[in-house]
Amino acid sequence: MKTKNAAGRMVETTICGIKFKPFSGARKYKYTSKVTSLANALKKCGLKDGMTLSFHHQLRNGDFVVNKTLEAVKELGVKHIKLAQTALFNVHTPVIDFIEEGVVDRIEGSINGPVGDYVSKNPLNSPVVLRSHGGRWAAVKTGELHPDIAVIAASAADERGNATGIIGENAFGPISYSQVDALYADHVIVVTDNVVDYPCPYQEIQERYVDYVAHVDCIGDPRKIMFGTTKITDDPMKLKIAHDCVDLMDAAGFIKNGMVFQSGAGGISLATMKYLGERLMEKNVIANCATGGLTKLIIDIYKAGHVKHLYYSQVFDDYSVKFVQEELGLPADIGHYADPTSKGRTIDGLDTVVLGATEVDTDFNVNVNTHSDGRLLHGIGGHQDTAAAAKLTIITCPVYRKTNPIVREKVTTLTTPGDVVDAIVTNEGIAINPRRKDLIEKVKDKLDNLVSIEDLKNRAYEATGGPAEINLGDEIIGVTKWFDGSLLDVIYRVRD
Amino acid sequence: MKTKNAAGRMVETTICGIKFKPFSGARKYKYTSKVTSLANALKKCGLKDGMTLSFHHQLRNGDFVVNKTLEAVKELGVKHIKLAQTALFNVHTPVIDFIEEGVVDRIEGSINGPVGDYVSKNPLNSPVVLRSHGGRWAAVKTGELHPDIAVIAASAADERGNATGIIGENAFGPISYSQVDALYADHVIVVTDNVVDYPCPYQEIQERYVDYVAHVDCIGDPRKIMFGTTKITDDPMKLKIAHDCVDLMDAAGFIKNGMVFQSGAGGISLATMKYLGERLMEKNVIANCATGGLTKLIIDIYKAGHVKHLYYSQVFDDYSVKFVQEELGLPADIGHYADPTSKGRTIDGLDTVVLGATEVDTDFNVNVNTHSDGRLLHGIGGHQDTAAAAKLTIITCPVYRKTNPIVREKVTTLTTPGDVVDAIVTNEGIAINPRRKDLIEKVKDKLDNLVSIEDLKNRAYEATGGPAEINLGDEIIGVTKWFDGSLLDVIYRVRD
Repeated sequence: MKTKNAAGRMVETTICGIKFKPFSGARKYKYTSKVTSLANALKKCGLKDGMTLSFHHQLRNGDFVVNKTLEAVKELGVKHIKLAQTALFNVHTPVIDFIEEGVVDRIEGSINGPVGDYVSKNPLNSPVVLRSHGGRWAAVKTGELHPDIAVIAASAADERGNATGIIGENAFGPISYSQVDALYADHVIVVTDNVVDYPCPYQEIQERYVDYVAHVDCIGDPRKIMFGTTKITDDPMKLKIAHDCVDLMDAAGFIKNGMVFQSGAGGISLATMKYLGERLMEKNVIANCATGGLTKLIIDIYKAGHVKHLYYSQVFDDYSVKFVQEELGLPADIGHYADPTSKGRTIDGLDTVVLGATEVDTDFNVNVNTHSDGRLLHGIGGHQDTAAAAKLTIITCPVYRKTNPIVREKVTTLTTPGDVVDAIVTNEGIAINPRRKDLIEKVKDKLDNLVSIEDLKNRAYEATGGPAEINLGDEIIGVTKWFDGSLLDVIYRVRD
Repeated sequence: MKTKNAAGRMVETTICGIKFKPFSGARKYKYTSKVTSLANALKKCGLKDGMTLSFHHQLRNGDFVVNKTLEAVKELGVKHIKLAQTALFNVHTPVIDFIEEGVVDRIEGSINGPVGDYVSKNPLNSPVVLRSHGGRWAAVKTGELHPDIAVIAASAADERGNATGIIGENAFGPISYSQVDALYADHVIVVTDNVVDYPCPYQEIQERYVDYVAHVDCIGDPRKIMFGTTKITDDPMKLKIAHDCVDLMDAAGFIKNGMVFQSGAGGISLATMKYLGERLMEKNVIANCATGGLTKLIIDIYKAGHVKHLYYSQVFDDYSVKFVQEELGLPADIGHYADPTSKGRTIDGLDTVVLGATEVDTDFNVNVNTHSDGRLLHGIGGHQDTAAAAKLTIITCPVYRKTNPIVREKVTTLTTPGDVVDAIVTNEGIAINPRRKDLIEKVKDKLDNLVSIEDLKNRAYEATGGPAEINLGDEIIGVTKWFDGSLLDVIYRVRD
């Protein structure tokens, strides 16, 4: 059918069977600054009861943005929010008040410390959903977790929404968790204390995704980024474990030119980096890539010329924040790093990873989420992602802590299945997963501290009398998911 | 319902009304190199009759990848391909043979030169769909144009698919058209003649989107990037037009600190950049941003300190290719630059843009696609996008060329509607759109060469005797779309 469109041209509405919509008019584009207050931004994004608000955790224990946002939500009289943060820390203890006031009633995301303790004893309206870094990215991508409003902390942003964590007084490193939220959330608010001239010189989040830029007095205290799991140990027993990890990598033939390694956070993993750096120098080996979180330890290896590339998704200390300001390198957002639904990830080439545990069991299953008393006190982080990717996945832990057996018959909560765990390195020897016959063959003549996992468990039980009874309720307060979205385990209420 | 999952944990399949899928097993991730031949990559991506293959045009008239790919398609015995390139040039003349052989039977994308001439006379199975840069990005994003396989030329790529156009012997600048294809195509093939060690140091395309890396002997001849529309004019009449554009910007008050400007390709637009640079220096003005394609002219202004930021999506000459290798600056992919469905774009802040035309009419409508004989010989590029964004949109053209009136009653084909065009600058004066009363008010006492568009048309008709009759058929061979997806105009077959 011929019709005259708004430009006065005679056009057909169907051509060769393809339908066309006639032009209805053109107008000049107008833009106005997106800068406003946090409360106003939330209001303009249509905040209402029951919505899901997402946050990243890259200011870690120095983050003020989650608390400030929930304060604004409360002032706006809105309730029943689902928190979809990538992680909560001690600084987020006020979340407990927001839960008690009904502002927050569900959480999907990692919880560390006090909020986890509280939730373990006081079930929310539905269980806390714990996912790995890659698993969370995939859940947002597939729509399993849909943020209505993504609230993204930035240490600098321009008035149109281009935003970064690299520069500014409260710089915390590149924003790397929030790209998927920016892409899939219905609304996006960048929260910053530092509105810079357009265009912001780094743009981990781009204006094309941003509805509003909320200007606040302070996004956080970056000196508290280095918290808890990001401090190196000085305990001789743990240092011995770290050293044994490097011996195991070496015996297994991974310490050679071109190796790709990752360190988890946690004191022993960090100490391993120190010893690995020394070993690379001793053997004059040049690794190809270090992946994961940046620390001074890894940057030192890089500066000494013993690793060619730093492929990082987080920045764990002040030194590293300054380093990336001077030499950006290869920041990889969490999707590039670990999205299990992608066609290729930075972790796919991993040779070795050293990860922590709150418990391991005789099937090589690992728990990092709950303590042995059942309390949910930690997130999954990249544990599952890297464990399933690395050619040599090492878990470190003492055989027991005080009266609690760490190596045990069955983990209290399952985080990472034994199928992807290759070795447990403890203060009383190294247990290699019997499924890895090839690995055992390679290292058995080179290491004199190999033991069976049952032996380790027996020693733990002898020293402690075995696991204590724990007092759990029937209510499920949380679940751990495998990064493919399936249900690994359930976490029960802890009775006071 | 309680069930035992593959890790031996007892879990519920419904908790608080939410359904969960029990864990079914974990396995170690394995990866192999993605490098293979182009034919094999196409085969493994399931190439079959009727599929849509997309390409970028950043090697312009030096591109070998479109022809090589169609050769491989032909050898595989596959037909009825829809080409969804961002643009074709003279180098793609062999596409005519592929059309005649039935390998290609539809095109959605810009066509410049011989293929356009051919298609104008030999209709394809459905009309060629012409979109602006931003319009094409949006069409892929919304699914209106769905590439089955995205074929992405790269001057360097690693074996996992991280790819760039910035480095390598055949570097052509950052890949900026293909991100949306990588994101939405079912399959992605990176084509390179330069497989570099992992990780590729620049990554405009990331491994997460890439199925295969096709290794070919040569992706193209980057010396031919600077072709046709990217050479500055030396015609005194055109230089005068360019100079008048700068006078108009100045009279309208746009040449001041913080201005944001863009130049289209094309000889006059480029000359305008030269004069604008001189004016910025004379008046000691520092612009904030130059957007669009990089050329030596714009880089000279930057190096002289008269524009603070270069926000670029294309690189138009060899000098600029080298420049971005040394100083990356702010490359913006085409989505960031111009996606009309986004929440903010680099062009949204444009003060001025200078664009070309094959014809303009007394309603200030602009044609850049067809010549006055009806032949489809050019693409839309960023014409519509920037025209609708800029506060001052200037179109330049001579009043007539030889015996053909360029300013006329009605354009042969509508590319950009007069509603977003502010001024036509010609060799016989400047016509300002009467809708822009504010602009007329600002400049009328400062410029002595203002004329009405009707006057320009009359002069053109007096000199040429008016538009020649053209001999068109009934078949529609192409359509122009506005960047919102609506139908601006139809293009009819030209009879020989």
